[in-house]
Amino acid sequence: MERTLIKDLRDHVGKTVTIMGWVSVRRDQGKMVFLDIRDATGSVQTVVLPKSPALDTAKELAREFVVEVEGEVSARPAQNVNSDVPNGDIEVAVSGIQILNSSETPPFDITVDTAALNEEVRLKYRYVDLRSERMQRIIRLRSEFVHACREFLHERGFVEIETPLLTESTPEGSRDFVVPSRLHKGKFYALPQSPQQYKQLLMAGGFERYFQLARAVRDEDLRSDRGFEHTQIDIEMSFVEEGDVMRLIEEMVVQTAEQLGRHIAQKPFPRFTFADAMERFGTDKFDMRTEEEKINGALSFAWVYRFPFFEQAPDGQWTFTHNPFSAPIPEHAELLLKKERIGDILTAQYDLVCNGFEVGGGSIRAHRAELLRATYEVMGHSPEEIESRVGHMLKAFSLGTPPHGGIALGVERLVMTLAGEEHLREVQAFPMTRGGQTSVMSAPKELSDAQLQELGITFQKPPRHE
Amino acid sequence: MERTLIKDLRDHVGKTVTIMGWVSVRRDQGKMVFLDIRDATGSVQTVVLPKSPALDTAKELAREFVVEVEGEVSARPAQNVNSDVPNGDIEVAVSGIQILNSSETPPFDITVDTAALNEEVRLKYRYVDLRSERMQRIIRLRSEFVHACREFLHERGFVEIETPLLTESTPEGSRDFVVPSRLHKGKFYALPQSPQQYKQLLMAGGFERYFQLARAVRDEDLRSDRGFEHTQIDIEMSFVEEGDVMRLIEEMVVQTAEQLGRHIAQKPFPRFTFADAMERFGTDKFDMRTEEEKINGALSFAWVYRFPFFEQAPDGQWTFTHNPFSAPIPEHAELLLKKERIGDILTAQYDLVCNGFEVGGGSIRAHRAELLRATYEVMGHSPEEIESRVGHMLKAFSLGTPPHGGIALGVERLVMTLAGEEHLREVQAFPMTRGGQTSVMSAPKELSDAQLQELGITFQKPPRHE
Repeated sequence: MERTLIKDLRDHVGKTVTIMGWVSVRRDQGKMVFLDIRDATGSVQTVVLPKSPALDTAKELAREFVVEVEGEVSARPAQNVNSDVPNGDIEVAVSGIQILNSSETPPFDITVDTAALNEEVRLKYRYVDLRSERMQRIIRLRSEFVHACREFLHERGFVEIETPLLTESTPEGSRDFVVPSRLHKGKFYALPQSPQQYKQLLMAGGFERYFQLARAVRDEDLRSDRGFEHTQIDIEMSFVEEGDVMRLIEEMVVQTAEQLGRHIAQKPFPRFTFADAMERFGTDKFDMRTEEEKINGALSFAWVYRFPFFEQAPDGQWTFTHNPFSAPIPEHAELLLKKERIGDILTAQYDLVCNGFEVGGGSIRAHRAELLRATYEVMGHSPEEIESRVGHMLKAFSLGTPPHGGIALGVERLVMTLAGEEHLREVQAFPMTRGGQTSVMSAPKELSDAQLQELGITFQKPPRHE
Repeated sequence: MERTLIKDLRDHVGKTVTIMGWVSVRRDQGKMVFLDIRDATGSVQTVVLPKSPALDTAKELAREFVVEVEGEVSARPAQNVNSDVPNGDIEVAVSGIQILNSSETPPFDITVDTAALNEEVRLKYRYVDLRSERMQRIIRLRSEFVHACREFLHERGFVEIETPLLTESTPEGSRDFVVPSRLHKGKFYALPQSPQQYKQLLMAGGFERYFQLARAVRDEDLRSDRGFEHTQIDIEMSFVEEGDVMRLIEEMVVQTAEQLGRHIAQKPFPRFTFADAMERFGTDKFDMRTEEEKINGALSFAWVYRFPFFEQAPDGQWTFTHNPFSAPIPEHAELLLKKERIGDILTAQYDLVCNGFEVGGGSIRAHRAELLRATYEVMGHSPEEIESRVGHMLKAFSLGTPPHGGIALGVERLVMTLAGEEHLREVQAFPMTRGGQTSVMSAPKELSDAQLQELGITFQKPPRHE
């Protein structure tokens, strides 16, 4: 279709063009009609003059009708210029209108801030909400940010590799979402909580520099900043120490955030050991911004590192604090192997915080079998349990796995800080409701009896109260 | 860590460097040892001379040990130059070796073609297989190809938008993988077979140009070119006709394939109506290559379009041939609305074929509610069934959805043709076995009783045969 984008109209003053888009506003003045037309690139005022052949059609239009408008672009007379809006110095004199689709009255007004709307209505009609200036801006910002990170990583020789969705449970992770197998009735795949083991296996596979925009799925209780699904920039590198990973990530975050016009409060990012952070801030997710920096929308990043590897439950049982696949810091490897002073062992874990959010976390991994085995022994696992949980990783480590480490950055959390938003639903196109219901569509729902039978599944009927 | 990449060694002749990588070959000549060292960027011959302090360590090494090697790069004397291999004109005289990890004897030899190996062994040790020259090349090719497509689309104003994994069943699709909900016991999410409805809703949402590298998951019988999971370059555009989409995709495919050094047999791609293709080739997935083009590895693309919209079952029931959300071609819209000459109605569907594979397919969609409703009526659905299956889409179409269309290109199929491979497992890092088992890890597997209970699931016990 022949079409001029609204952002380019100013290059066509004096010419006849065809624009396509939505009717944002219609002002009917009887003899003439003003229409604000919007496309993905901008907005412009059009006018249907008294003698225009399009006047009858213009009178049929309402908000959110989709139209093709033909007309001549003209500079507005000086007294009509509105310098407060884009394209406020031009208008289009309409000679023809074709209705491409009509619209019922929209369920809410998208010209005001939709964030405060009732969640259920807003997400049922998410496609209307997405037309608002704010949602357009945030979803496009997300796309630009992710693309800038990809460019950065590709330029540095990283290979983007996809890992499976249908996989095995993550040992000691959060609660998995599971997928029943039809071919192997009674058995389940798990959806990945992260590609942790696959990315380490890619290091065993000799790729040295891997990344992926990986979807992570966790059956956790929903909060404003945590959904069932999120996306992480998942990175792993071989032949590196913790400083190498931290430097690279810092460079990527600074470069992409500044490319998007954001101000970073402090460079290089301050680094705090976990012990220092707790002493100074009382938390490892702290916000260092001054009031002025908050007002100016500055991003305040910091690294926290050298976390305790293990913590002890009241019953004496040790468990890892962050990730069982992490390595101890090199000078504590002997303590781990000898299982001495467990509570003192520090892990080569580093978290990135921004404005009080944890936006990323990673570590140098154990790459020798004896270290991973010792970690599981500290946590009280028998040799059989260890083999069953991580036997394949121990095997990989005994077949030439290089030293390696990496990080995962939370895309939603980063875009939230870039956009100054506090809710996950503002940065995902189709978020779930707080009740775990999909936007627009109606899932979860019941399966047919045939589907259940094919999977061999029955349900425990709840007791009936009649 | 300070390190010189093997690809850069030739810039360091006469200097002492540190390289890190794997021992590909060790040749022990008693007084001296030759080691071929490999990293992700290349391979080089090193020599441990009789007086080197590293000689004892060199004698401990075996294939696939991971090492850090210090030594001086030197040009080989003319008579020792091997011009058949990269870096055949230099070698490294080793002064120090540090073992970063040892390796047991690998389960198979990665210096020969691993494609012919027993599948079970190969995928159990996929991380060893991935070190082979061929797998490195293909997985890196996939990353480059996808990145080139992304660049192409970003340059043209496309916005990359992620859509949910936990969603509703696709109406009339293949068999879904489903995910039981813990919050809503007895109900299920479905994993997406494609983001078909979401991408249309993004057009309703005003994005105009969307793409996503989308994971599609289908519980279909496994074949050499079809797995449970595949990735598609999923694209949707507003205010377009079929020619607009076909031209853009053709430009992207030509540009990216040529950028990767591939030869395209015929440009512009020939176009055949479905009727012409069937008459000429007897199939709509044809291979037009001459013998010479096959030998030279040329890519032979063609478009097939104007498919029949519906086909009739022996019982008289009509069903769609490709996609219920497609539009009829504009001149057949009246036939569909009046439900006349159903078998003659053509749909604005276009498939891209390459070397006998279908590598993509798409269509202009119905964007007016009455057309989608008529499609479902032709298929014999009652008003209630239509509301339950696609009521949310009909609602979106009545709230200002623009004309739109798009396509999905199969990443694995395209990479297979680019790499000259015939099996899906050659182009995925961690494919499933033909029996639906994961690479390296052991899924699917049974859940614990606690997990089953949390989901409220029980299994029909199969009858016991004792």
